[in-house]
Amino acid sequence: MSQDISKTDSASNVPAFVHKRRGGAEYHRTCRLDTDNPQSVLHVVGTSLKANLNRGAPPGSKFFSVKCTANVKFELSPPPVESSHGALVPLSGKSVILISMSHASQSEKDDKVIWTAMKIQKAFNPTQVFQISLDVDADRDGTVEINNPHKESWTWGPNGHGAILLVNCDAEKIHDKSPDNEDPRIVKVSDLKDMSLMVLRTRGPAELPEGYKLTMHISQGDAESVRVFRAASHKLFSSFVKDYPLVLSSEVLSQEVPYLGGSAEMNFYVEGLRFPDKDFDGLITINLSLLQPVKEGIPETPIFTDKVVFRVSPWIMTPNTLQPVEVFVCSTSDNYQFLKGMKALVSRCGYKLKVCFEYMNRGDRWMQDELEFGYIDSPHHSFPVVLDSPRDGHLDDFPYDELLGPDFGYVTRVAHRKDVSSLDSFGNLEVSPPVTVNGKKYPLGRILIGVAFPTATKGRNMTKVVQDFLWAQKVQEPVALFSDWLCVGHIDEFMTFVPAPDRKGFRLLLASPDAAYKLFRGLHKDGHGQAKMFDGVKNEERVTVDDILRDENLRDENNYVQSCIDWNRDVLKRELGLDDDDIIDLPILFKLDEEDGSRAVAYYPDMVNMIVLGKDLGIPKPFGPKVDGRCALETEMCSLMEGLGLRCTFIDDFSSYHKLLGEVHCGSNVLRKPFDFKWWNLEL
Amino acid sequence: MSQDISKTDSASNVPAFVHKRRGGAEYHRTCRLDTDNPQSVLHVVGTSLKANLNRGAPPGSKFFSVKCTANVKFELSPPPVESSHGALVPLSGKSVILISMSHASQSEKDDKVIWTAMKIQKAFNPTQVFQISLDVDADRDGTVEINNPHKESWTWGPNGHGAILLVNCDAEKIHDKSPDNEDPRIVKVSDLKDMSLMVLRTRGPAELPEGYKLTMHISQGDAESVRVFRAASHKLFSSFVKDYPLVLSSEVLSQEVPYLGGSAEMNFYVEGLRFPDKDFDGLITINLSLLQPVKEGIPETPIFTDKVVFRVSPWIMTPNTLQPVEVFVCSTSDNYQFLKGMKALVSRCGYKLKVCFEYMNRGDRWMQDELEFGYIDSPHHSFPVVLDSPRDGHLDDFPYDELLGPDFGYVTRVAHRKDVSSLDSFGNLEVSPPVTVNGKKYPLGRILIGVAFPTATKGRNMTKVVQDFLWAQKVQEPVALFSDWLCVGHIDEFMTFVPAPDRKGFRLLLASPDAAYKLFRGLHKDGHGQAKMFDGVKNEERVTVDDILRDENLRDENNYVQSCIDWNRDVLKRELGLDDDDIIDLPILFKLDEEDGSRAVAYYPDMVNMIVLGKDLGIPKPFGPKVDGRCALETEMCSLMEGLGLRCTFIDDFSSYHKLLGEVHCGSNVLRKPFDFKWWNLEL
Repeated sequence: MSQDISKTDSASNVPAFVHKRRGGAEYHRTCRLDTDNPQSVLHVVGTSLKANLNRGAPPGSKFFSVKCTANVKFELSPPPVESSHGALVPLSGKSVILISMSHASQSEKDDKVIWTAMKIQKAFNPTQVFQISLDVDADRDGTVEINNPHKESWTWGPNGHGAILLVNCDAEKIHDKSPDNEDPRIVKVSDLKDMSLMVLRTRGPAELPEGYKLTMHISQGDAESVRVFRAASHKLFSSFVKDYPLVLSSEVLSQEVPYLGGSAEMNFYVEGLRFPDKDFDGLITINLSLLQPVKEGIPETPIFTDKVVFRVSPWIMTPNTLQPVEVFVCSTSDNYQFLKGMKALVSRCGYKLKVCFEYMNRGDRWMQDELEFGYIDSPHHSFPVVLDSPRDGHLDDFPYDELLGPDFGYVTRVAHRKDVSSLDSFGNLEVSPPVTVNGKKYPLGRILIGVAFPTATKGRNMTKVVQDFLWAQKVQEPVALFSDWLCVGHIDEFMTFVPAPDRKGFRLLLASPDAAYKLFRGLHKDGHGQAKMFDGVKNEERVTVDDILRDENLRDENNYVQSCIDWNRDVLKRELGLDDDDIIDLPILFKLDEEDGSRAVAYYPDMVNMIVLGKDLGIPKPFGPKVDGRCALETEMCSLMEGLGLRCTFIDDFSSYHKLLGEVHCGSNVLRKPFDFKWWNLEL
Repeated sequence: MSQDISKTDSASNVPAFVHKRRGGAEYHRTCRLDTDNPQSVLHVVGTSLKANLNRGAPPGSKFFSVKCTANVKFELSPPPVESSHGALVPLSGKSVILISMSHASQSEKDDKVIWTAMKIQKAFNPTQVFQISLDVDADRDGTVEINNPHKESWTWGPNGHGAILLVNCDAEKIHDKSPDNEDPRIVKVSDLKDMSLMVLRTRGPAELPEGYKLTMHISQGDAESVRVFRAASHKLFSSFVKDYPLVLSSEVLSQEVPYLGGSAEMNFYVEGLRFPDKDFDGLITINLSLLQPVKEGIPETPIFTDKVVFRVSPWIMTPNTLQPVEVFVCSTSDNYQFLKGMKALVSRCGYKLKVCFEYMNRGDRWMQDELEFGYIDSPHHSFPVVLDSPRDGHLDDFPYDELLGPDFGYVTRVAHRKDVSSLDSFGNLEVSPPVTVNGKKYPLGRILIGVAFPTATKGRNMTKVVQDFLWAQKVQEPVALFSDWLCVGHIDEFMTFVPAPDRKGFRLLLASPDAAYKLFRGLHKDGHGQAKMFDGVKNEERVTVDDILRDENLRDENNYVQSCIDWNRDVLKRELGLDDDDIIDLPILFKLDEEDGSRAVAYYPDMVNMIVLGKDLGIPKPFGPKVDGRCALETEMCSLMEGLGLRCTFIDDFSSYHKLLGEVHCGSNVLRKPFDFKWWNLEL
């Protein structure tokens, strides 16, 4: 029989991929080399077979010998004194052989291990060797490399590794559409680009031995979050959806996949179904196992398993400092003045303007509140995703009907009606520019939301399902501010961020009654005590500077408002790592609405509630007291912003927004470009 | 007015506790020092007050000066050229004062800041200073230290910090009992020892200023997991439960707590309500805030918040290598022989034996399967906790009725009837001794459970709620083995651990058909082919050694069983960091039950299914072939265990357990001593 062995030439085929695992630890598989009952052994490159020789030897055997074909490497333990092939070695209870092969067999008859337990029997163990690798883009460069040694795990950071998945939440179909992740089929072949490529690379004889098979499988838990399709055609790309059958889903956790034979690649497309949330950390494992048959009616035994791990891209918000792409506003029967101002501003800045008309908005003008723009990102693809608020006003259909589409995703969180309050509007959901806090970097900024004081026995809050969603995204760790002191309760009523050429690249603007009083006292001192607020506003009673300064009740109310804003100022400084010089106080007064639990509303148009478009600011026109024909509040505002190179455009929103307790920011929304910074490079 | 100030002597009182936070970063609170409207300021030691002086100064002010009482320290920014008290300093938009006090005021009139904005007004800001600290045992030494700087966070390891909470799942009441965490009241004062002490330490004037108050509060999320009681009596310890009113619960998230005045301590008792689980990481934050009044109808503003964090103790399992305390078995109408053997063994070893009689077990003898013993641990207290399986056989009432009691806790997980299978019995839930795997230490061992192959399209599994619970405990990271190949499907049918004096301190024992065949072939070779199995067993057909060796079908079936066990062997070696020398193969044969999907049952009493009591092993009597009057299987077993210093006692469980597909281990349970190692010292 040794003649047969010598014929085999195994050096023809240099291995292209070899399995290495977690710090180089090898996978040993216990197998049986039985002299009584020699069995065919299937071997996967990169693993080792380990057999206790005494187990399979006849009782009373005292010596053994081993011979192998050239592709087969073996080690004996304990190491024999004389190590040449075929030498006689003493047999003990601890005699172990460790067998490995460096590359796949060319044919099913290539490789063999012969061992003899003296003096009774001789065993011939034919061996077939396969290379099997389930591959993904674990190094995040946009292409699927061969058998990345780290593909089984996922780590953050520029030196991290692990593949990335998108939630396929856009809609390829334009008519009769729904988010693609809600459809178990591939509706158009263009949908494949929203998925992550996964490649099964195999090498070996033309067929697997009788009864062996390859199976791809996922856990029950992961099946809620992922689907896998297979490219059934061998052509590079098929334009027929029927050529991409579903392999794995919540209905099918395990399915056989074909073994193609020879040196082959098979493409799979992995589709993310859900975003990270309280009960889902975003990690998904896909397994490929080689199953060994046993006998009819008995489940096959997995003898080799290859794994890949994906992390689903979080949903990422875009701060005011990112470049605008498109501005969104509503058209209503009464907002012509506002719309005119916005159109002029946006066209001057050169951005797109999308107007949502009344048939769609049904009179709901609060474009800021119904939705929040964000995006998802991977090395191979990225697209914007709108988060639809559980607020569900008359604008409710807009995000789904008008925004969802090819490469525009949609996500929402459903809350009980009773749990939803005004704090669930997304004027109460903002994000800071990138910050560094006590050395900890937040290169994607931090999400900001408004809630009640934790000490309040009663109070409004952002609903739990949305808060859980925001926290679970992880990459823009949220900060809870106190906004329940406001009648409407949105943080955009007292704060915003504008770009700046110096310091941290931005300034935090805060509404400040103290700054307003300071300004009004200055006007009084300079002889403008009789200058009138609200000049030029229809049906609005004029109020002089001195009227305001004399109103002790208003002063008390604004002291309270200032203390509320100061509380937020302290939190913002601490959680965003800001100094006082990073903050600019804007002169804004509030008043309390006694009917609404003494909560605050803006006394005149709330200038901080602005739209930020690059260096252009669209600011609610405050209709302040005039000095030398010019509004003193506008003058102050311009002087504060000028130093930062920002242009102020004042937009009249008095009757159509301000009187309805909102302003420019509440009535608009901005789709912005994504960050250059890649979320997976965060050091978490 | 400066005369008043000079009278104050503030050096009399050295501060006993000062607030330090996260790496010494100070908490600044923005406050207003208004010349128009000077307000009383309340200050907490360890924080700083920061005021922009220009904000509160009359318009046109050019200079200012500041004077303070001795307890008050202040810094000006930008720093003045001349820094003496009361000197005139130029006023600008950036003029900021930072005020701090080193210790609490003795009386409400102690401390003052006077500042003058030239040449217009003079402001007098009376100040009262308080020391407030919510304290816990953050250094884990069993006593509540003063204001631990790390009390706001929780970290693992011997150098870690953070307080610990027990789930109060025992029952103080013996009659009409229920777990104490299910009762919102304290039923007996002895229950306080199951809670964690938390102390509110305050120092300051006799009363808080008008309208100010202290409030303790928790988040909605944490409220599901914790309750807080207060010691209302000033006596060191009251024996009346009415003296411990409920402060916080899921019904009351925020409640005022009294300020006692002077130098005072108030005790609180914190009760854990639930174990870590998929949706609960075990961390709980309790907050104490000082609230500033604003005006009627307006919520108070928190101006200072102190926080403490607890982690709930996980439920910890005890491996065979820990010292037994008490052994549990059932008495049934037919198990006299077994009970006699067990009683003799346990009494010889000197442990307690608890027999569950038939009125309670209702014929269900599987003491191993209905429950798993574990414990919870904290620096101040520890007690055993039984995990009740969702198996819910006739033994179902035993854990609650017979085990739950004072210092004996109870926890269960409720599953849908349809999701529960034989794999949910706790013979399928074991824990390894401490191991180290590729340098990673598991000083509390690793939990082991049995499931179906991940590749199986159908298969039985341990129910998700129990698996989620086990994984969430974190300190004994579970390993999933493959047990669905067994008819009953429990891992204790093919593996156990015994103590050993050498190597890792234990051996893994595995059932091995190969080892059995080896032994039987040896018997044949030595002329004992006609020796009979099952000699002395009533109603059992005798089978000779040669019968067994001739049965090719049995050989095939055992090849399959060996491959299943080898698969588990490879997983156990990898996940527990074991070498082959850490494993001992026991000669055990199985057969397949064709009626039950070709699943395996033990051919003769399954010796690996033993009870381990220190150095004594209670082993199912195998009734193997006799050689020179002695059972060859017992001889082999004794010879394998002898080297480890272990004593084998063979217990006849043939008719009452083996024939019902279980053995000694299935029919018993052992309460063991906890680990010396403390779970919070794990490096996770």
